[in-house]
Order: sequence, then structure tokens, then C-alpha cells
Amino acid sequence: MDLPALVDRMSGRASKYDAAGEFPEEDFADLRDAGLLGLMVPPRLGGTGASFADYTDVAVQLGSGAGATALIFNMHASVTGALAHTPDELVRQFGAPESFFASRDRVLAAAAEGALYAVAMSEREAGSRLSKVRTAYERTGSGFRITGAKTFVSGAGHADAYLVAARDATSGEPRISYFLVPAGPGVRVRPTWDSLGMRATTSHDLDLDVEVDEDALVGGIEGAALLLAQVMPQWLVASYAAVYVGVARSVLRHGAAHLTERGLHTLPMVRARMGRADVQVAAAELVVRRAARQVTDDPGSPETNRWVWRAKLIAGDTAAEVAFSVLEAAGASATRRGHPLERLYRDARCGALQPATSDVCADWLGAAALGDNPDEVTRW
Amino acid sequence: MDLPALVDRMSGRASKYDAAGEFPEEDFADLRDAGLLGLMVPPRLGGTGASFADYTDVAVQLGSGAGATALIFNMHASVTGALAHTPDELVRQFGAPESFFASRDRVLAAAAEGALYAVAMSEREAGSRLSKVRTAYERTGSGFRITGAKTFVSGAGHADAYLVAARDATSGEPRISYFLVPAGPGVRVRPTWDSLGMRATTSHDLDLDVEVDEDALVGGIEGAALLLAQVMPQWLVASYAAVYVGVARSVLRHGAAHLTERGLHTLPMVRARMGRADVQVAAAELVVRRAARQVTDDPGSPETNRWVWRAKLIAGDTAAEVAFSVLEAAGASATRRGHPLERLYRDARCGALQPATSDVCADWLGAAALGDNPDEVTRW
Amino acid sequence: MDLPALVDRMSGRASKYDAAGEFPEEDFADLRDAGLLGLMVPPRLGGTGASFADYTDVAVQLGSGAGATALIFNMHASVTGALAHTPDELVRQFGAPESFFASRDRVLAAAAEGALYAVAMSEREAGSRLSKVRTAYERTGSGFRITGAKTFVSGAGHADAYLVAARDATSGEPRISYFLVPAGPGVRVRPTWDSLGMRATTSHDLDLDVEVDEDALVGGIEGAALLLAQVMPQWLVASYAAVYVGVARSVLRHGAAHLTERGLHTLPMVRARMGRADVQVAAAELVVRRAARQVTDDPGSPETNRWVWRAKLIAGDTAAEVAFSVLEAAGASATRRGHPLERLYRDARCGALQPATSDVCADWLGAAALGDNPDEVTRW
Amino acid sequence: MDLPALVDRMSGRASKYDAAGEFPEEDFADLRDAGLLGLMVPPRLGGTGASFADYTDVAVQLGSGAGATALIFNMHASVTGALAHTPDELVRQFGAPESFFASRDRVLAAAAEGALYAVAMSEREAGSRLSKVRTAYERTGSGFRITGAKTFVSGAGHADAYLVAARDATSGEPRISYFLVPAGPGVRVRPTWDSLGMRATTSHDLDLDVEVDEDALVGGIEGAALLLAQVMPQWLVASYAAVYVGVARSVLRHGAAHLTERGLHTLPMVRARMGRADVQVAAAELVVRRAARQVTDDPGSPETNRWVWRAKLIAGDTAAEVAFSVLEAAGASATRRGHPLERLYRDARCGALQPATSDVCADWLGAAALGDNPDEVTRW
Repeated sequence: MDLPALVDRMSGRASKYDAAGEFPEEDFADLRDAGLLGLMVPPRLGGTGASFADYTDVAVQLGSGAGATALIFNMHASVTGALAHTPDELVRQFGAPESFFASRDRVLAAAAEGALYAVAMSEREAGSRLSKVRTAYERTGSGFRITGAKTFVSGAGHADAYLVAARDATSGEPRISYFLVPAGPGVRVRPTWDSLGMRATTSHDLDLDVEVDEDALVGGIEGAALLLAQVMPQWLVASYAAVYVGVARSVLRHGAAHLTERGLHTLPMVRARMGRADVQVAAAELVVRRAARQVTDDPGSPETNRWVWRAKLIAGDTAAEVAFSVLEAAGASATRRGHPLERLYRDARCGALQPATSDVCADWLGAAALGDNPDEVTRW
Repeated sequence: MDLPALVDRMSGRASKYDAAGEFPEEDFADLRDAGLLGLMVPPRLGGTGASFADYTDVAVQLGSGAGATALIFNMHASVTGALAHTPDELVRQFGAPESFFASRDRVLAAAAEGALYAVAMSEREAGSRLSKVRTAYERTGSGFRITGAKTFVSGAGHADAYLVAARDATSGEPRISYFLVPAGPGVRVRPTWDSLGMRATTSHDLDLDVEVDEDALVGGIEGAALLLAQVMPQWLVASYAAVYVGVARSVLRHGAAHLTERGLHTLPMVRARMGRADVQVAAAELVVRRAARQVTDDPGSPETNRWVWRAKLIAGDTAAEVAFSVLEAAGASATRRGHPLERLYRDARCGALQPATSDVCADWLGAAALGDNPDEVTRW
Repeated sequence: MDLPALVDRMSGRASKYDAAGEFPEEDFADLRDAGLLGLMVPPRLGGTGASFADYTDVAVQLGSGAGATALIFNMHASVTGALAHTPDELVRQFGAPESFFASRDRVLAAAAEGALYAVAMSEREAGSRLSKVRTAYERTGSGFRITGAKTFVSGAGHADAYLVAARDATSGEPRISYFLVPAGPGVRVRPTWDSLGMRATTSHDLDLDVEVDEDALVGGIEGAALLLAQVMPQWLVASYAAVYVGVARSVLRHGAAHLTERGLHTLPMVRARMGRADVQVAAAELVVRRAARQVTDDPGSPETNRWVWRAKLIAGDTAAEVAFSVLEAAGASATRRGHPLERLYRDARCGALQPATSDVCADWLGAAALGDNPDEVTRW
Repeated sequence: MDLPALVDRMSGRASKYDAAGEFPEEDFADLRDAGLLGLMVPPRLGGTGASFADYTDVAVQLGSGAGATALIFNMHASVTGALAHTPDELVRQFGAPESFFASRDRVLAAAAEGALYAVAMSEREAGSRLSKVRTAYERTGSGFRITGAKTFVSGAGHADAYLVAARDATSGEPRISYFLVPAGPGVRVRPTWDSLGMRATTSHDLDLDVEVDEDALVGGIEGAALLLAQVMPQWLVASYAAVYVGVARSVLRHGAAHLTERGLHTLPMVRARMGRADVQVAAAELVVRRAARQVTDDPGSPETNRWVWRAKLIAGDTAAEVAFSVLEAAGASATRRGHPLERLYRDARCGALQPATSDVCADWLGAAALGDNPDEVTRW
């Protein structure tokens, strides 16, 4: 696989998909061909068996080509990565039936063959807080019926299946389960996504009124959302970060090209802006890679969590800040639609706003630095 | 005239014109009805006889309703204001024929009756530097023929006449004259404007191949561009600033509405962001109003120039910075297209990039603070 | 009075008093000679009858000469200004006896003749919160006995009398009264002041065990602290701000001198730093003067309070930020002790930390911008 | 060796040496006892044989204890490290006589036994630019006589020998040689160091009028300054950076202690300031350690140089910024002299001002990002 060449092709198409706000079909055809949908899948199931650190390396590069594509890929990698990396003993400890393993392997093997998964977790009222999910499920004879509505579903309409969080309609307490719901008639896309940036993620709303088989229940047991919730969101937070480092790198690359081409590269303030942006991006990348190594080596520890928050905060802020500053250096001619810096200025602003936001990460990090344990109070 | 009500109506339409990238027809119908096209015109010619400080007050308010509309209005006000405020003695001193005064009065009286003027100064190669203008004119029997191309012409296609800077095609040295060219067949709009922000200014390119009468020559003498150049650009720079203070105010207003509505207004970091934005906007507005008073009372003095640069720098930077921070406070839901904060984030970025850019203003102010006289080196 | 000359002399001595951490005797001899101790005293009592806006103008200039001197002067001006500006009707409304007016006039007339007053409000436990004051008073036959300890008493050991806040020892509820306690044996200075910046304010601790006459009770009635509290702290907050604008101005002046002398003034980054500092200082000064006009014209209104917080925030932050940036432009040679920029870097950091701190002001302003009324919740 | 315990002891004494502006005798007694003066010395000569990356680890820790001590140690480590790490072939290539190696080994072996070396490179006129050095040497019968004056000599008066850069008095062109000049009668300290921060480095001036033996000539050949110059300054730049990461860490530690102790750690703005400071320091440390690995693995390459500038820029800026912000969170009580945060606020400001300054590093990095090669233009 020639990743740099693939990234170049993505970069060349990014403007088109951004303008249209459409799912980057060609990018995913390329990713599929390159076997990247199986990145997180164990070799025994036909995949690459990548670690979180390996994923991060890929995500930074994809993000530097096309941020929106990298964000959709990130969702797929989070589903497959969380499934692949959750240790068997932990799954058993949570009471999963032995049938879980066969089911999980089928899901992963399909990814290795090119199936694309998306995440349908957030809801308009609940935001990204799992415990407030309103989408409900109830048992049928042969499986479950799931009804409700989701939002911010990146890749909606183009995934083969959706990871859906839903609550047990018959239980008084918040019993949240995960289902892998295949695309089909009961899964309707409401095209609500028309956003400032990252427009090609097609993160539309999803209306659900669908029946699924028994083995769509992830983990094989109800109420197991907590199981994946401990791994998944961390995955998501840290994996967003890698994408935005890629976006920030892209700002440097397109900024340098524009400034050199226009003969502005010798202006002192242009050099100063580029120099300071260079340091910020280099620093953010080191933090994100360090967090990735922590997640790989010591998942879930307080120290690892702190690195994940640092990664999320610095990647989101850095992308937005360098896009802001480099666009100023580049000048009015770079604000025409279709110019990469115009798109990047919009794309880059989105990172700090995705959960956990920069302000929330700062608060948790501050609490930790001051001797509190934010893990005890923060819930998903 | 009920300006606040007019501003409210503009505010309600801003999203529509931004989405379409179209000239805000209804806003200008309202401005015309309210007599605001005659704002700078002396009362004896049917106008309001506003000072630059008066203009600034109006522009801040218009900018808080719809930035793009205020920028187009700013161009019109710059043309009429520069004509109305240039003292008769100065005009005579520059050798203008007596016919100038009648011609000028016609132009101003037409504005008071609803004519809209635009500025066609910048060119793709020359940028905003007058001395590098390539659009050329030559004498015909009855007047002049003007040929060339302009860019960044706000209101292109909707103005009744364009203030065009052109060089004498027959002269070896840069002899630049101004013409007021009526809209018509020889003035063709090339719809190139498709920008990150301030999309409704329709600042398209203009292709010129047109013959004009003798009295289209502004000032009545060739090479007089310098005359207006001393007043105009200063006018432009300082008047941009007022618009961006309006934009910044608008960020506060829409930010407060969004945050209160969503129940986010009690979060400490939200309060901190809004509080710091409040101070920045208040400070920027004071600087811009102070500069306006300077331009009114002591136009062209070194002290006045410094205030103009300060106004330009702080207004552009403040608008962009508060839009950046308040959008972060507002969160992902405010990044949907059509949300005022989404538009303001894009509109607000444009101010610092319009000439003189913030970095250029900082350089000039630094030079002045260190005992140099930037007036001696900076040219238009 | 030749204020600029006086300021120059103060500027020349600032380094000496900073190094020694000693009360600026010569500065106050000059201020006394110039009649400035009577600045706030009505003309009928021998003073200048200055408004708050007039005071602000003087304070900015004094602060640009020697910040510490200006801060001590500010305390004196706050006492005399609050006494002079509180309307007679308001005083009567609060139930003050007629004897109050003669007593007040004596205090003010003494200032016009050169008496210096200091403020002893803060305590180590209570900070600057009036309601938590522990210094107590009880009635004696002929007046009151006051016992307790104060901190941050600028000018301690050099004032003729101290405005002391104390609680009624015999009352269960927090009944706070103000006393003007003459310097003397029962008022002992504990030399605790040895600070990063503003070293010459000699803001030492004060141990009080002293008996005072009946008419030392300010306002003539107990529990009237609230009366002055509504005026005083506002006075203090807004008047600090003026001093730090002076400090910020001083940074520009000394920065320009140092950079020009060393031939560094043509470096682009030096110009950029000076240019941006110039705008910041100009903006901060406008905000502080605007707040001063508000306090003069419409004291105590919600709008005025907002301007006071804005003034405090922007003055403190601006002084600290420009000192930080200009010292960086000036380079290592400006960090030698005795260099004005070295002192200013330390002095300038103190403004944002004096109550109300910048973070507190931002919180209040944010609350106000979001529709809350911080006046209702914030207490002194 | 128990480095953390040693660092704790240094931390406990830092305030005392800062107040006195005196050489930290006890710290160096401890460093000597711990064998750290031989850190860079090869094991065959009695040392530890540390790499640059090893040094960085030690320097960060020492800097978190006492910045000034770490800066003096840094000079010693730069001399011994540059000598130890310059490959023999390179030395031979430059034409050094075989006697060089014995002489070098003597110098290094002495360090392992506790000798302390200082650097006397900067001069008042020349700054840190080697080519402008005015200190001169001429041949005597038995060696050289060196005359001139140096400035910013950290550890002056306490080192056993000084690395002195001097020009050949008899040559027309700038032929610069290095000498290791033993302390003694001809080396007089002029106590000029009285600085804002890093006061205990005793970086006084040095007056030189001294005769030295033949083998004091470093490298054994004249004009070889270039040899060490290629290694040394890089060493210095990157090694400063490690110290300031230590200082920044120290700000976090003392900030957390102060804030927790005062019960301020639950305030939202305090948490936000600490959280953001935490990310900045973590990022700066990763950059500095990355640069150290580059210097270790691939000294002198363009990529390594960029990492060195990044390290210098981010370490200096981060230390200064977090000291600024955390002091603001800590409040006025932390500005009393003797409080660690008061000292750190002054110490931390010095890093960005040491050569290469942050603005210079940003300029070089910007040039590199824009396709220029700053190595070609920048000279020492």
C-alpha cells in the first residue's frame, strides 16, 4: 500500500467533496482497495492487526489529506478497534456468552473484506452522554426492535452497519446496550448535516425503526454498553486528535505552497507566523503520538486518560489556531472558496468543539493537576 | 428613520444573502427609503451632511445587522464622503477647473436621490497599490476611453456608477486619474466572488472597455488621483473598521442569545469567554470612534493616521477573535449553516485581511512608536 | 503646577525606591507642594474639586512616572474623593448626624493642607471582603477602642491617618463601621511588605490597639460601612485601573528609548511587538477614561459598574502583557536590575491580581452579557 | 545517586540563593558528591558517559529544583559534552595534533574528579556572535597571553577553568580560537550580575589579562573555534531548553501546592489555568526530549537543527507563559518575595531572551518551513 500516494489523491478531491457536502466515495474506494478498512482487524481474520499507535500514524496522514474522510474512517476504526482490542477475559468477566466471540469475529472479518461501520451514539437532547440516551429497544421473538433518532452520524447512508446505543424500554433504570444495526429499510437518513466545516462527513441524523437479530446485540448481553463505553469514547477522543494533527499539518503544507508561490515567503511577519505554527504543530503531534502509545501500552489508567485529554485539547486548539494565523499570513486571495486554506479554516475549527471539548479537557486536566480525580466524576 | 428596526430587518435576512452569495437587494431598498444613501451628502444637495464620526455610528449599527451590506454601504459612503469632505480650497489648489464643483454636486445630489456608487480600485496584479494600476485611459474626442480589469468590486452589478482608478496610457510615468463610470454595456461583471465570508458583498471582477464623457473625470483634471488618494484610502481603512466593530457586537448578541437559550450561560468557562469578549468589543469600539473623531477633526495628521491604523487593527482582530472564542463557547450546534454564529465566524475573519492588514498596521504603528515616520515610506 | 515635570522627577527616582522597597518621600513632598493631596477636596475647603474623570487623568500620568507612588496616591484620593463626592442627601438618608458634615470637612481641609490618608481594609483571613472583617471595635466612654490587624496597607507608617474597617464586637451580626484613625502609638506597622512589584508602596501590615474619639467614626453612625462601601470599592477598582494604564504607557516609553538607543528599532519583530503594544495601551486608556466619565456622570448604575470592571480588567491585563512582550523585544540587557523595563515587568504583573482580579471581572462581565445581574450576587 | 532527593534539597535552597544573588555552593557540593560533574565524561576517564538525551533528562530535573543551578551546570555539561562527543576523526580532520587527545582527556578526567568549567564567550559589544569577539590572544614563548573582557559568565568566580573565545591579535581576519583558562590572578571577576531572574547564576563579567600554557589551546590548533562552534552553541541552545522545561514543571508543582493549600483549587478559572498550563508543559517537554534524541542520534543535520530551535522556542515561551498564568491564578499572596512562584515568575522570563531568542527561532523555523535554508545565512 502506498499511503502517501493515497493521501495525495484524497487531498486533490477534498475541495470537491467539501463544496458538495457529499460522502467521499472515491476516497473510501481507495481505502477499501488499500485494505485499510481491515486496519484494526487481527491478521487471523484477514486484517492488519494494528495497534492504537499504528492507527494514529495512519489517521494523522489521512487527516492531512482530507479531514472529513479521516473522521469517517476514525469512526470505523473505533468500532473495529474497540472490538478487536477488548481482551477476551474482560468480555467474559462482563458475562458475555461464548457466542459473542463468533459474532465479533464475523463483524471484524467483514470489515477486513471491506464493510464500513459507523457510530450512532449522540442524540439531539442527550448530546454525547450515554446515560441520557432515549433511543429504546425491546425484545421481539427473534431479536430486538429498536426505535429512536440519532444525530451526528458520520458516514450516514454509506455505512454497511451502525453501532447504535439504545436503552431497554422495559427497564426503569438506564440499562444501555449496543447494537450493530445493518443498513436497510428501517434505518432512514435525515439529511440534516450542512455544517461550517468537515462537510463531507455527512454526519446526518438517523431515524430508527428496525428489527434486528439476536446477535446484533454487541457483547451478547444487555446493559453491556458500559463495557464498550470504557474503551470506545476514549478511543474516539484520542482518535479525533490524530485527525486534527493531520489537518494542522495540512495547513502548514498548503500555507507554505501558497506563500511561496505568491512570493510572500520572505516577509518577516509571514516567516514569524509560519515558524510559530511549525512549533505548535510539531508539539501537538508529539503529544498525540505519546497519548497513542499510552493507550496502546496502558489503556484506561489515570495517566493514560490525562494524555488522552492533553491530546484532544492540543490537537483541536492547534489546528484551529494555525489555520487562523496562516490564513491571515496568506491574505485575502486564500479566502476564495475552493482554496485549501479556506476549507481548512472551517474544518480546523471543528476539533475543539467535538466532545470532550477543549474547555472540558482543560477542566479535567486542571482538576487532576490539583489532586482531584476527574475519572470519578466524569461520566459518558 | 428608525435605524434599529432597519438593522433588525437586515439581521433577519443576512443568513439568506450569505447562503446565496447575492447582493442584498432588500437591505438596499430599505437603506434607500431611509435616505441613508444621502448620509454624506450636504443638506443643500438633499442629504444629511454627516461627519465621519456620524458615519461611523451608522456603520457600526449596520455592521451589527449584516456585515456584507455594511461593507457595500461603506464603499458608497467613502465615495460620497470623500467628495463631500474634500475642502473646496484644496480642490482649487490642485488645479481643478470650476466645472468640477457642478459635476461633483450632480454626483452627490444623485446619491441623495438614491444612486449607489461602488469602488473599482484593486487589480489582480497590483492589489490595492494605486501606483501599480494597469487599467488605462486615453482621450477620445468627447472624453475618455477606459480599458482594463478590476477586482474586489463590492456591489458589482448593482451600483449606478463605479469609481475607477486608471493610468494615462500615453504617459511614461504613473499618472493616475479617477473616473466615475456609469453602469452600462462597457462595464461587464465577471462573477468571481465566492468567498469564505462577507459573501453577499458580491465583490466580483469588473471588465472595462467603455467610453465616458469629459466630466466623468473626477476633479476635472488628470493625475488627480493623488488628491483623493490622500483622503479616500484613509476613509476606506477607517470605515472598514466601523463595520467590523458591528460584526463583533453581533457576535456578542447572537452568542448571548444562543447560550441563554441552550441553558449554557451559567457555565464558568462560557461566562469567562463572554466576559473577555465583552471587554474586547467595548475597547475596539472606543478606538474606532476615537479614530472617527480624529478623522473628522484633524484629517490627515500623523496623529490621526495612527488612530486610523489602530482602529483598523483592533477592529479586524477583535471581530475575528471574539467570533473564534464565542463559537467555541456555543459549541457544535452553532456550526450548522444558517446559524448566525456560523456566518459570523466566516465574516469576522475577513477584516484583518483587508488592506491595510493587521500585520501591516502593527508594523506602521511600531515604526511610529519607535520614532520613524511611516507616512514617508508607505504609499498607496 | 507642572505635572509633566513632576512625573519626570518621579520617574527618575522610581528605580531607587523600588530597590530599597521604601516609601517615596521625595515624590510625596512634590505632590504635597503641588497641592495634589487636595485634588479631590472642594475649593471651598482649599482643594481643587476634581471629578473622578479629572482624577483619572492625573493618575494615569502619575502611574507613568512611578506606579507605586501612584498607587499610594490612589488610596488617598479614594478616601478624600469618596468623602467629597458622597451627596449630602444620601448621607442624611443613611441617618448621619449633622455633626458628620463638620467632621468630614475637617478631614478634607486637612488633606488640602497636606495630610495623607491611607486605607486599612484588607485582612489576612478576610481578604478584601468587608463582611468578613475581624478587626473589632467597642464603645468606650469618650469614643471607641479598636483592636485587630490589617494587611496590604499602602503607605503604612507614612500616612497621617488610616481609614479602618471594623466590626462591632458586641453585635452578633456583621455590623461594620469605618473609622479614620490618626497615626500614633496604638497603630504599629509590621514591615511585612517585600513584594515582586510595586515595592515602594510599603503596603505593610498594621497592628491596631487604639482608642479614638467619637468623631473618628466616619459618617457619624455605626454600621455605615455599607454607605461608603458602595462608593469606595468602586472608586478603588476604577482608580487602580488608571494607575496601570500609566504603567503600560511607561513600558512603551522606556521600551522605545531602549530599542532606539540599542539600534534594535528597525527589526521587524521589534516593530511588530511595539505596534501591537501601542494599540493595546491606546485601547486600555480609552476604556479607563470612559469608565471614569461614567463614574463621574452616573455613579453606581449597572452600566457604570460594567465599565468599571472592563477598565479594571483591561488595564491590569494590558500592563502585564505589554511589559511581558516589550521586555522580550528589549532583550537580556533590559533585565538587569535598575533598568526601567526590569522594574516595570514586576510592577505591571500586580494589577490583574489586585481585587477585583481580571478573572473575577471577566466572570461578572460574562454574567452581565448573558443576562444575569452580578450586582445582586457579588458582595464586598 | 538519588537525583530526586538532590533536586528536593536544591529546591529548598533556591529562594535563599536567589535573594542573595549568590553562587549555590551547597548545590554544587551535592552535584560533585553525586558525581554529576562527570556526567558527560566517558567511563574510561571516570565519568558516566551520558548521551545528550541522558543529559536532557538530568537537566529537566535539576531545572525543576533550581533553575539557576541547572543553568550553571548546563555550561559545565556543554564544555565537557562538546569535548567528549566530538568524534576523534573530525578533530584529526581539522588538523589537531595528536597531543590534543591527551590534553582533552586530562580536562575530562578532572571534571570527573569534580572540576567545574564555565564558558566565557559573550562580550558586551559582540553579544554572542563569535565572529565579533574582541578578546585577543598573542603567542608568548611558552604559550599565549589573553587580554579582554567577557560578560554573562555563569558561575564566574567559582569555576576551576573558563572556556574563553579569543581572536588572534596578529591576524587581519577573524581567526578565533578557544582556550581553557584556569582560574587565577589574571582572571578577575567584575560583579555586574544583578538580574531580574536566574540571579544565582552569578553571570558576572570577567576581565582577562593572563598567560596560559601551550596546551590551554583547545584542539591544539589556532582558529579551531569553528570546530567547537558547530557543536557547542547547538549544545547550548538545546541544553538551555531542558532547564526551562524544568522551570515550567516547577511552576506546576508549586502552583498546585499553593492553590490546594489555600483552598482555591476548586475555582473553575483556577482549574482552567492549571489544565492549560499542564498541556503546555507536557508538550514542551516532549519537544525538548525529541530534540535531545535528534542531537544524540543525528547531530548537526538540518532536521536536528529544526528540532533544536523548536525546543528552544517552546521551552522558553512555555516557562514564561505558565509562570505568568499560574501566578495570576495563585493571586497576590504568591507575589511576596521568598514565595517560589514569585521567583519562578522572574526566572521563567529569562529563557526566551537567551540566544537564540524565541523571535529568532521563529524566524529560522519559518524560513525553513518556507523552503529556505537558515543554516546558510545564520552564523555564530
